[in-house]
Amino acid sequence: MIKKADMTQDQLDARHAEKMKKKKAAREKILATKTKEKGLIIVHTGKGKGKSTAAFGMIFRSIGHGFKTTVIQFVKGGWDTGERTILENYPDLCTIKAAGEGFTWETQDRQRDIEMAKLAWEMAKEAIMDPENTMVLLDELNIVLRYDYLPVSDIVDFLKQKPEDTHVIITGRNAKDELIEIADLVTEMEQIKHPFRSGVKAQAGVEF
Amino acid sequence: MIKKADMTQDQLDARHAEKMKKKKAAREKILATKTKEKGLIIVHTGKGKGKSTAAFGMIFRSIGHGFKTTVIQFVKGGWDTGERTILENYPDLCTIKAAGEGFTWETQDRQRDIEMAKLAWEMAKEAIMDPENTMVLLDELNIVLRYDYLPVSDIVDFLKQKPEDTHVIITGRNAKDELIEIADLVTEMEQIKHPFRSGVKAQAGVEF
Repeated sequence: MIKKADMTQDQLDARHAEKMKKKKAAREKILATKTKEKGLIIVHTGKGKGKSTAAFGMIFRSIGHGFKTTVIQFVKGGWDTGERTILENYPDLCTIKAAGEGFTWETQDRQRDIEMAKLAWEMAKEAIMDPENTMVLLDELNIVLRYDYLPVSDIVDFLKQKPEDTHVIITGRNAKDELIEIADLVTEMEQIKHPFRSGVKAQAGVEF
Repeated sequence: MIKKADMTQDQLDARHAEKMKKKKAAREKILATKTKEKGLIIVHTGKGKGKSTAAFGMIFRSIGHGFKTTVIQFVKGGWDTGERTILENYPDLCTIKAAGEGFTWETQDRQRDIEMAKLAWEMAKEAIMDPENTMVLLDELNIVLRYDYLPVSDIVDFLKQKPEDTHVIITGRNAKDELIEIADLVTEMEQIKHPFRSGVKAQAGVEF
């Protein structure tokens, strides 16, 4: 074998081409292993914005593909007017459900909140088991789990047995470790800068 | 003034109520300062998923409110079929533009990519200056800036002068510090877990 220092320009070019060819082949080999399709457990957590927005974005994408979806709202904040208006244009492809008013920051009535969380979880199970659904969004479930309104072990046990093809997205800050453990895709939205700090209020289109 | 240790139960309760009242008043005073409405410069960056998805989610929200929006695609990946299908149902409220094929990972033709980036930036400026637009999404602009296909100082100088009411969202990993500096709202999407690592390929609804 000739040493690199002794090579002609042509030999160097050929060596480079050979190296690149190998690199490309290795890359293609890796890509070829990414063949599985499966329903994912997706978690959006962190203190930053975009957790629910990105989840709703995936619901919109799925609707765009003609897939059936369900959104279960565990916390009803009244921040959903913009998305809701559009989602309601696709009643055959998107069902939105909330248990009563759902958990709110206003009630401070723990027993009522637990009842609502249980009701929403029953709806969630039904939606996930529905073979017609491709994607189910459990919006702000993490909040409910954080307050221990539902036992996380129940949720984890159920999700482990979910239909193979169904994607389940769970949003909310402070995702429990047990949930992250079983998730396939976890993204943490981190807040770097927020306009609230400079006196700007929540605005249509951005926050709701 | 009576010391706390010498107070009766009634006095302690009254003291507590007084403290809480002050706390509430202080909180309301803070909230009252959050009154500004202004067009924000929003940046979604980081290696995790959800940067574009959350941005498109805000576009959907704005459409839901009946606002006019424009999306400029700086990198055309063909990953946008799901969103695009729905956005195309609202041609009066959402304009989608890309410069030719836009920058792609495939061409490896730097001069062509720079030309396309410049063309897209011209479209972006026009969209931002259009007083009818409420929100303009510069999708994957950060990629173009990272490769120095456009000088970041041009973008920053322009955005500093943008119409006050218009929201501008910029997505893509590796956001430049100069951009973060002038942004109002910056979220970093951090990848905690990704299914690609366990052999799962990109799937409709989730990735595109």
